[in-house]
Amino acid sequence: MSRRIRRTPYTSCVEKSGISGFTVVNHTLLPKAFQHTTIEDYYHLREYVQIWDVGCQRQVEIKGPDAFSLVQKLTPRDIRATEVGQCLYVPLVNDEGKIINDPILLKIKDDHFWFSIADSDILLWVKGLAAGLGLNVKIEEPDVSPLAIQGPYSEDLMVDIFGHKIKNLKFFNFGYFEFDNTKQLIAKSGYSSQLGYEIYLNNSNLGEKLWNTICSFGEKYNLRPGSPNLIDRIEAGLLSFGNDMTSENSPLECGFEKYCSLSSDLDFIGKDRLINEKKLGSKLKICGVAFGGEAQSACTIPWPVYSNDIKIGEITSGIYNPALKVNTGIALLLNDYLQKVSNVKVQVLDREFKEGVVCSLPFSVSKNYELINQVRFKK
Amino acid sequence: MSRRIRRTPYTSCVEKSGISGFTVVNHTLLPKAFQHTTIEDYYHLREYVQIWDVGCQRQVEIKGPDAFSLVQKLTPRDIRATEVGQCLYVPLVNDEGKIINDPILLKIKDDHFWFSIADSDILLWVKGLAAGLGLNVKIEEPDVSPLAIQGPYSEDLMVDIFGHKIKNLKFFNFGYFEFDNTKQLIAKSGYSSQLGYEIYLNNSNLGEKLWNTICSFGEKYNLRPGSPNLIDRIEAGLLSFGNDMTSENSPLECGFEKYCSLSSDLDFIGKDRLINEKKLGSKLKICGVAFGGEAQSACTIPWPVYSNDIKIGEITSGIYNPALKVNTGIALLLNDYLQKVSNVKVQVLDREFKEGVVCSLPFSVSKNYELINQVRFKK
Repeated sequence: MSRRIRRTPYTSCVEKSGISGFTVVNHTLLPKAFQHTTIEDYYHLREYVQIWDVGCQRQVEIKGPDAFSLVQKLTPRDIRATEVGQCLYVPLVNDEGKIINDPILLKIKDDHFWFSIADSDILLWVKGLAAGLGLNVKIEEPDVSPLAIQGPYSEDLMVDIFGHKIKNLKFFNFGYFEFDNTKQLIAKSGYSSQLGYEIYLNNSNLGEKLWNTICSFGEKYNLRPGSPNLIDRIEAGLLSFGNDMTSENSPLECGFEKYCSLSSDLDFIGKDRLINEKKLGSKLKICGVAFGGEAQSACTIPWPVYSNDIKIGEITSGIYNPALKVNTGIALLLNDYLQKVSNVKVQVLDREFKEGVVCSLPFSVSKNYELINQVRFKK
Repeated sequence: MSRRIRRTPYTSCVEKSGISGFTVVNHTLLPKAFQHTTIEDYYHLREYVQIWDVGCQRQVEIKGPDAFSLVQKLTPRDIRATEVGQCLYVPLVNDEGKIINDPILLKIKDDHFWFSIADSDILLWVKGLAAGLGLNVKIEEPDVSPLAIQGPYSEDLMVDIFGHKIKNLKFFNFGYFEFDNTKQLIAKSGYSSQLGYEIYLNNSNLGEKLWNTICSFGEKYNLRPGSPNLIDRIEAGLLSFGNDMTSENSPLECGFEKYCSLSSDLDFIGKDRLINEKKLGSKLKICGVAFGGEAQSACTIPWPVYSNDIKIGEITSGIYNPALKVNTGIALLLNDYLQKVSNVKVQVLDREFKEGVVCSLPFSVSKNYELINQVRFKK
C-alpha cells in the first residue's frame, strides 16, 4: 500500500471490520472479502443486507454550457429524454467504436452530470476531448465516494436512517436526503441482483460517521460488510469492464445494441464504426455458459470454450453457483459459431474438458433452466 | 485476481520465483517483493544485479503525420532537438497546468513515438485530444512489456546475452538487439540509482523465454528477481506519480522547471497556466526530508511535517535508509515556509514528533550530509 493506491473515506472502518483482502479500481481500494467465503456472502446478500465500500466508483463531473452536448457525444445511448434525478447505464465508446467504460450517468441538472465510472481514467478521456474541441465545460473528480447498501432489508434499513421519503425513490432514480446536517445524493441502484441503494457521499470527512451509523442501525437486520459478489453478479448477468469486455470490444458485442441509437440523427463518437459493424455483423458476442464437473472457484485466468475441438472463445468471469448447482460463467464467444451450437466444452486451468451449454444472460431467465439441467450433473 | 488486473508476459515466471506480493499499476500486476526485506533488496541491488517485471509500464504509441506536433502539445519540454534513438523524461500536463503522468518518451522514428507511462490511462487522454483536434495519427497500446535489468553487474550480464555492441549504448538512449530471431528495443535506463537496462519486449509469447534466459545467464552474477526499491528510489530522488505528485500538482512544484520551456514559442497544453504560476510563485515544492528516531518501515499514509507547530506539508514516500542511517522521505511542503526554515518535525502515524531537516534531492548530494548529521541520532 502506498499513497498511489487511494484510500476511501470508509477504508479505516473497513480495516476494523475484519477485511481479508483488497483489489484496486480507479487507483482506489475496493474490499474483496471479509472473513466469509464467496458462497456464504452470496446467501447473506440474498437474505439480509450488506454495506459495501464502493468509494472506488469515482465520479467524473461535467458542468457548463456545453455539458449536455459533450455527454451525448460520449455515448451511443440517446440521453435527450433523460430527466434530472435519473440514472442511466451508458456505455462510453471511443473513435474506433470500442467500449472504454460503462458508467452510470446521473443527471444532476440540465447542464450538470456525473459519470459514476468503472475501472479506467475517463476523466482523462473527457478532458482530452473537451480540450481538443474547445468546449465550455468544467470537468473534475469531485469529493464523492459512493457507499452501497444491498440486500432485501436495504429499504427497511434506509428508512430507519433517512426516513420514509426514501420509499418514494424509483429504481435508477436519485434524490437528496439529510445526513448530519448535510444533503446527500442517494440513488436506488447497485451492482447486485438485489434491492439496494447507493449513497454518493459528498464529504469525505463524514465517511466514518456514515459507515458507523449504518452499521449500528443495521444490527437488527443482520447487516454485514461485503463487496460485489461474483456468484450473484454472474447470475444477474452484470458485466464487469476489464473482465467481460475491454477496449477491444464493441457495445454491439456486449449485448448493448438497445443502448446504441444508430438510426438517430445523434452525433456521438464511434457512430460510423458501429453502423458499419452492425451492417457486417459483430465478430464476438457475450453470453452465459453453464458447465458441469466439480465446483470451480473464481476464474482468475480466462477458461477456453470449445465447440467440436475448435476454440470459440473464453469464459472471462466464472465461478460455481450453489443455488443453480452448476458452474456459471460470462463468456466472449465467436458469433458465427453461436448460430449453430449451444453445446460446448469448457477447459479449466489446462485440465479435462467439462460439458457446457450456452445460455442467455441473466442466468435466472426461465428458459435457461432446461439448458442448465443438461449439464448440471455431468462429470 | 481477475482478468481486469492484467498479467504480464513474465507473471508466470514471477509466480515461480517466490513472489510474496503484487501491487497494481496501469491495471497490470507489478511485483512488490520476493521473500527478502526492502533493506536486503536495497543492498543486493547496489552490489549485484536484479531482474524486474515492469511490464506494467505500458506504452502509448503515437504514429502518423501529426505525431510530432501532438507529442509536443502534450509536454512543456522542448522535444524539437530529440533524436531517433533517444529517451526523454517528459512530464505530461493538462489544460490546468497540472501533471497527469511523467513518462519516458522514446523517439522511434520522426513520426513515431512511445510514451512509457506511469500509473494513469494516458492512452485515453491522448486519444481524446487527438479526436477533439481531428489529428491524423494512430494511437494504441502495442504488445510491448518492459523488463528491467538493474544493478552494477547489469552491463556484464547484458553483454553475455546481447553481445558487446550493447556497451555502445549511452545513458537514456536505445538500440535494437537480437533475441530468439527477433529484434528487440533495449534502452539504457531504469527506475533505480544503479546502472541498468530496460528491454521493451515486443512479443508477449517470448516473455518466459526472455526471463529464463536472463536468469540462467545471471546466476554467476548473483542475479535475483526484484522490483523498484523504495529506499533506493527515495535516496535517488526518483519521484513516483500518484505518490509524490498527483494531478493536483504542477510540474513547477515538482522541481521540473528545467523541463518547462515557458519562454519558447512552443505550443503545449497548460502553457498559460504555467507561465502564470511562475509569475505568482508555486504554492508547494517537493523536497527531501531526513528525520531521526527509530527506523521507520514504508510510509503507507502520508506523514505530516510541522514547522513551529504549523503543518507545512507531508511526506508522501518515506522509509528508513540503512546506508544513510536516517529516516528519509520525499515531501510536498508549502513553499512560503521553505524560504525560512530547514528544521522541521515529522509525525509518524499519530505518534510523537521526530526532529527532521529539509534536504535537496537526491539525498546523496554532499551538502546534505551535514544536514542529515543534525538529526541522524536524534530520538
